[in-house]
Amino acid sequence: MRTYRLALIGFGNVGQGFAQILRDQGDALAQQFDAQMTIVAVSDLLKGSVCDPDGLSPAALLDAVQTSGDLKGLSAPYQGWDAVRTIAESNADVLVELSYTDLESGEPAVSHVRQAIEKGQHIITTNKGPIALRYPMLSALARQHGVEIGIEGTVMSGTPTLRLGQELLAAAAIDRIQGIVNGTTNYILSQMESGATYADALAEAQVKGYAEADPTGDVEGFDAAGKVVILANVLMGASITLGDVARQGITGLTPQDIATARNEGQRWKLIASVGKTADGVHASVRPTRLPIEHPLASVSGPTNAVTFTTNLLGDVTLIGPGAGRQATGYAIVCDLLGIDRKVKPRG
Amino acid sequence: MRTYRLALIGFGNVGQGFAQILRDQGDALAQQFDAQMTIVAVSDLLKGSVCDPDGLSPAALLDAVQTSGDLKGLSAPYQGWDAVRTIAESNADVLVELSYTDLESGEPAVSHVRQAIEKGQHIITTNKGPIALRYPMLSALARQHGVEIGIEGTVMSGTPTLRLGQELLAAAAIDRIQGIVNGTTNYILSQMESGATYADALAEAQVKGYAEADPTGDVEGFDAAGKVVILANVLMGASITLGDVARQGITGLTPQDIATARNEGQRWKLIASVGKTADGVHASVRPTRLPIEHPLASVSGPTNAVTFTTNLLGDVTLIGPGAGRQATGYAIVCDLLGIDRKVKPRG
Repeated sequence: MRTYRLALIGFGNVGQGFAQILRDQGDALAQQFDAQMTIVAVSDLLKGSVCDPDGLSPAALLDAVQTSGDLKGLSAPYQGWDAVRTIAESNADVLVELSYTDLESGEPAVSHVRQAIEKGQHIITTNKGPIALRYPMLSALARQHGVEIGIEGTVMSGTPTLRLGQELLAAAAIDRIQGIVNGTTNYILSQMESGATYADALAEAQVKGYAEADPTGDVEGFDAAGKVVILANVLMGASITLGDVARQGITGLTPQDIATARNEGQRWKLIASVGKTADGVHASVRPTRLPIEHPLASVSGPTNAVTFTTNLLGDVTLIGPGAGRQATGYAIVCDLLGIDRKVKPRG
Repeated sequence: MRTYRLALIGFGNVGQGFAQILRDQGDALAQQFDAQMTIVAVSDLLKGSVCDPDGLSPAALLDAVQTSGDLKGLSAPYQGWDAVRTIAESNADVLVELSYTDLESGEPAVSHVRQAIEKGQHIITTNKGPIALRYPMLSALARQHGVEIGIEGTVMSGTPTLRLGQELLAAAAIDRIQGIVNGTTNYILSQMESGATYADALAEAQVKGYAEADPTGDVEGFDAAGKVVILANVLMGASITLGDVARQGITGLTPQDIATARNEGQRWKLIASVGKTADGVHASVRPTRLPIEHPLASVSGPTNAVTFTTNLLGDVTLIGPGAGRQATGYAIVCDLLGIDRKVKPRG
């Protein structure tokens, strides 16, 4: 059986969701795919850091966090390593980059990913920052070092949107992508559709954990814009930046706007879109009125969806979860198995 | 550049759709994937048969059929070979089985596929017959001979439903699949929704080429039942047969049924379904009333859709074309590239 040794940088919701999957399904997945995933290091800025070259128990990691809120009481041969030292000194062959998202500098994730690639480690990340900002550079560096980069969790959590596009639709020629890629705003709009005010809907999204205390990144469309850049650069061969995305959030929508649309058989959605035309690639994020019959109109709550318009197949739409601890943890599993398909010995 | 030599058994809509893609995009695809697809033989029961070990021009094949309705005027080193001789004597390394669908015996496709596997050829087919009836046997035989079987086009034409399930959702554990997998009946139901009678909607579907002269296979649910068997056996590890599918067609639905549902905010769809429960696998095809908000309710006309209910991701829905000459031709491209990813040398 092949074994992959993983170092996790960051142990928040996504890392814990992945650890849950390994705890509950790890043995079954190993049997099914003849590939074992072993966490050898976890380094989290706040929760502490543990490394065991022979593998850490996912159950013990989760228990520690649940009991004490951190990893500091856990016994392990090496403790307290920061991210840089973890990448440099652990015996991991895959870096799982799950540190916080910064859509301005991409740091510290960009540095972590570079360091790991240069050490010959494969990369899996659910962090939009480094991918929205530096994907062309990082993917070139990975090719040069003969390693793979898995980024499935950066868009629509574990719903395999990017691999559907890269592996299964690439030959159909994707000319346009549009979708609902931010669950927070879609949840707020769905609540407003049911009569809530914007303020009440936002407050409820915050209580449910869909929206952060400072919701700007979601409601002003920055998060969706980052995802549009990723979709354009990864699936359409573009090289656009965040500044190229015409961006408008949902904060200007009134209950009256929502009601007027509903009375006319339409629904407001925050639509992220990128298309190729003769004069280049055009990307935008903006509230859009869709007829109720449109495949994206019935995508409600925290669910996300993307429609690929292709030359050979016409429209292909994928709908699935856009967030969630376990769903995003699945993105790491999906990427690891994708990397395994590429690098495993033949036969 | 890697080269794949293809023998096409059958040159109807799907074979011609594939030849169109090669004619129009073949060079671009070869560049993009570093893999050349060359048709070396075409054998069609009615249109005749040509074989050229150096490759046949897709444009010439299409011109011949368009001009004379057959391949008999085309010059080629070898002519008139039947399917068995084509498989035995051509230099193809991939058999593309596109002969007519027989959901009772699976023949002659089952024999073609067996013969080709035993000769060491990879298999690509869009023919439901052999896959619905003999997939467990054929896939075991393929493993034994070290060849691949691509069957993307057997469900939802070129929409990559089976590869999404096999490659990208397998680790999420698919517990249930439900979908709209027959375009003819979905078109008829959409027309009835707009006020047409069943007879008028069927006649229109026949004029548009969505329904055959004898529509029984579609409207009584046999086609959908074959697809349910494929989904269950390929994606859920089941080994059910057509007889295990509880099947009911759409011929009993009246305009009154449709109108009543509409007035209650619901819509009739022919839903194919398979699920795992503690006491086994249960499969059915039957008209079902869906709330208008259901992701499958807005799938109209010849469009198809499948919802995978998974353990780790919840529901993931894929919507795309369910028929069409070029869309089904794309299934062959998608399978060939999938085979290439598996067998190409590393590096």
